[in-house]
Amino acid sequence: MNAYHKQHLLGIEDLSQMEITALLDRADVHAEAERGARDHGSPLKGLTQINMFFENSTRTQASFEIAGKRLGADVMNMAMQTSSVKKGETLIDTALTLNAMHPDLLVVRHPHSGAVKLLADKVNCAVLNAGDGRHEHPTQALLDALTIRRAKGRLHRLNIAICGDIAHSRVARSNTMLLGKMENRIRLIGPPTLMPSGVRDWGVEVYDDMETGLEGCDVVMMLRLQKERMDGAFIPSEREYYHRFGLDAAKLAVAKDDAIIMHPGPMNRGVEIDGLLADDINRSVIQEQVEMGVAVRMAAMEILAENLRERRAAA
Amino acid sequence: MNAYHKQHLLGIEDLSQMEITALLDRADVHAEAERGARDHGSPLKGLTQINMFFENSTRTQASFEIAGKRLGADVMNMAMQTSSVKKGETLIDTALTLNAMHPDLLVVRHPHSGAVKLLADKVNCAVLNAGDGRHEHPTQALLDALTIRRAKGRLHRLNIAICGDIAHSRVARSNTMLLGKMENRIRLIGPPTLMPSGVRDWGVEVYDDMETGLEGCDVVMMLRLQKERMDGAFIPSEREYYHRFGLDAAKLAVAKDDAIIMHPGPMNRGVEIDGLLADDINRSVIQEQVEMGVAVRMAAMEILAENLRERRAAA
Amino acid sequence: MNAYHKQHLLGIEDLSQMEITALLDRADVHAEAERGARDHGSPLKGLTQINMFFENSTRTQASFEIAGKRLGADVMNMAMQTSSVKKGETLIDTALTLNAMHPDLLVVRHPHSGAVKLLADKVNCAVLNAGDGRHEHPTQALLDALTIRRAKGRLHRLNIAICGDIAHSRVARSNTMLLGKMENRIRLIGPPTLMPSGVRDWGVEVYDDMETGLEGCDVVMMLRLQKERMDGAFIPSEREYYHRFGLDAAKLAVAKDDAIIMHPGPMNRGVEIDGLLADDINRSVIQEQVEMGVAVRMAAMEILAENLRERRAAA
Repeated sequence: MNAYHKQHLLGIEDLSQMEITALLDRADVHAEAERGARDHGSPLKGLTQINMFFENSTRTQASFEIAGKRLGADVMNMAMQTSSVKKGETLIDTALTLNAMHPDLLVVRHPHSGAVKLLADKVNCAVLNAGDGRHEHPTQALLDALTIRRAKGRLHRLNIAICGDIAHSRVARSNTMLLGKMENRIRLIGPPTLMPSGVRDWGVEVYDDMETGLEGCDVVMMLRLQKERMDGAFIPSEREYYHRFGLDAAKLAVAKDDAIIMHPGPMNRGVEIDGLLADDINRSVIQEQVEMGVAVRMAAMEILAENLRERRAAA
Repeated sequence: MNAYHKQHLLGIEDLSQMEITALLDRADVHAEAERGARDHGSPLKGLTQINMFFENSTRTQASFEIAGKRLGADVMNMAMQTSSVKKGETLIDTALTLNAMHPDLLVVRHPHSGAVKLLADKVNCAVLNAGDGRHEHPTQALLDALTIRRAKGRLHRLNIAICGDIAHSRVARSNTMLLGKMENRIRLIGPPTLMPSGVRDWGVEVYDDMETGLEGCDVVMMLRLQKERMDGAFIPSEREYYHRFGLDAAKLAVAKDDAIIMHPGPMNRGVEIDGLLADDINRSVIQEQVEMGVAVRMAAMEILAENLRERRAAA
Repeated sequence: MNAYHKQHLLGIEDLSQMEITALLDRADVHAEAERGARDHGSPLKGLTQINMFFENSTRTQASFEIAGKRLGADVMNMAMQTSSVKKGETLIDTALTLNAMHPDLLVVRHPHSGAVKLLADKVNCAVLNAGDGRHEHPTQALLDALTIRRAKGRLHRLNIAICGDIAHSRVARSNTMLLGKMENRIRLIGPPTLMPSGVRDWGVEVYDDMETGLEGCDVVMMLRLQKERMDGAFIPSEREYYHRFGLDAAKLAVAKDDAIIMHPGPMNRGVEIDGLLADDINRSVIQEQVEMGVAVRMAAMEILAENLRERRAAA
């Protein structure tokens, strides 16, 4: 039925080029339906989707919730920050408890890298990683890929710059893997203090200045400065950071004329990016990223639901 | 199809007498259905309603949620207090982000006057103001109007007293506009320190004692003492306030024999109103106000959804 | 139609043996459907279920929410901790307000014993007690009973030990009543300081050591140490508590060979129970308790909805 036969969507690391393409093709269909008659059918009807966010994220949770509801799922949000976790329950016990309630789709965000995989190993349903620590954020990378593919007409042989706080960013990590698998040339640009320690093994080019790094780029992907994840070591002043790494018209001038601008949001205007550039509808695809987010999550949940039904029918 | 052709419902200020009547007529139909077989049809089926409350309000949010669900909408609640707002995102960016997810009905409460209009200007869907600062709370004024019309058989040429903390009350402001447009005689009663500065231009009578102000009234509308919105200037003692402005049998005696008692809730019993009066089913219509709240929100969302579909079909 | 004709489900105290059996029989049907095709029909379609949790409980609320949604109800969660309650509204006013919105099923958890009954007396809909103070938690007792009946093949003439913090446990109280009504032999085991004062009138055997109390038991029900409800008087060290009252293989050895192990969750592993025992699928039915929780809540809400429709048709 589909090219992606796994039980879960835990990371880009597990995905083949073909699986990525299959997911994006499916998402494209939903994206078009969203702009038109919203005739998605109800492929998730009768299924229970539970959003378990151990870390707060209004926009990602809303995106998954809208995606699920428009496909007919029963969607529940569990605020895990204020939950049994506080009563000392382990993550495994939380997983087993939920599993006993027979959910079908579990969307999980967790502050610790690897926690979503740990949970997925204990449950019978499909698990979607909505971000785990500094590890992976696969649906973000997929929505970015879909946005690029729609804007550029292809998803290979592009020069793509990912700029800013790479070290704390699961978005950068998942994007680097996905865009690398699709055979693009990737450049990471940021201050050395915000580069992950093993970055030389990532198979990418690394720059510490925007002027050189952005030269000839097709895609300029800015990252959010994750102050909330910096444990005190190095926090640049916002003014200095913007001066050196914030995207403005001058720095963008060395990229290709039709280079697109991306940001996963929420934006710090005047820190990572000039507000005017963010709003420039000829260059910025930031709103389209959000739009594609719903479509990609629809596709991922629909495919995992198909796999789930197959496994159950075979059991 | 309906007399109200606008995209949004932002305030009573924009509404004509005819539009108000059209909204109330529609709400009346839903109110009767609610008491009977609940045969509303599913006029909001396939639509996504998002409740964005930047200010907490369990009862108003519940009223909008029940109204939407009973009409078939997919309803989502976004707790904006604990959301991206904290990560420094601007209101405009939040609006643009949400807009990219293709919502249909956006119900917004915000602590700042004018914020809901600001947001409405940036989105394609229908926006309903669920209260913005001290500015407007149109569905509250509409539900009060429907309650009055059902109790009194008409919504014009009535003597209506609005009593208490006028200065901090968007309820008083929206009600004064609506009831004025419908050609009633409005009296505002309260301590001068709790009167808005420009009240003399409101086209109403202003009193600082209940005994004079309530004389011959058909409707006595009490307001909640909004201690949470008083910035320290003047906070009356509850005892003194009750003595002078709290509604009790003695003060009510000068109103008409069949005067009805209203309160938008939540009530401070023994501060704004005597508990026995609040519970007196021959005089108090406080529970009916809540009931009409659901009906009015149904009508407003149904009409805006019709307008939305027309605009989309024409596009 | 069913053996349980009441408007509400407030406690085990009100239930007869026959009513308990009727509820469990109905729940068993749902439990089987949950494991299979989930063909529950939509007995709650068109009904509004409101979960009002004045006390936080992710797992119980999730269980009621899943149960309601799978039976077709419109389910709403109201976070009462952060609500109008804070604005000084009384419980009665909250009840009357909600009642005016015409809910059908009200699921209420409250920190004060008796509060749920107080609220139920003021509303027209069906109220389900999801735990009130130290008083009752009827659906927990019913799900425990169903789990026992399925594991043991019967629900009478069993030796059942309830162990730990009896004094602060509504679970212990509701279970003692239910299992007593079904003619089992009940033993309460725990430190004298964690026994309720009137326990001698409960018609049970009381032990202060596990070795004697567990001898020959069919069922070993552990309780959560409710530190959050202990007002300072006596808080045992976890280490000492586990040594004397925590369930481990050595203490369990005196119970019957096929004795089952239960815990209402969330567990404190290494405090009330050895983690290995909790995970032993040959002895522990802890996950099945959670599973039966959904089924029991489905049955209870379905039956109360039938009663509600009958009362309304007769009105």
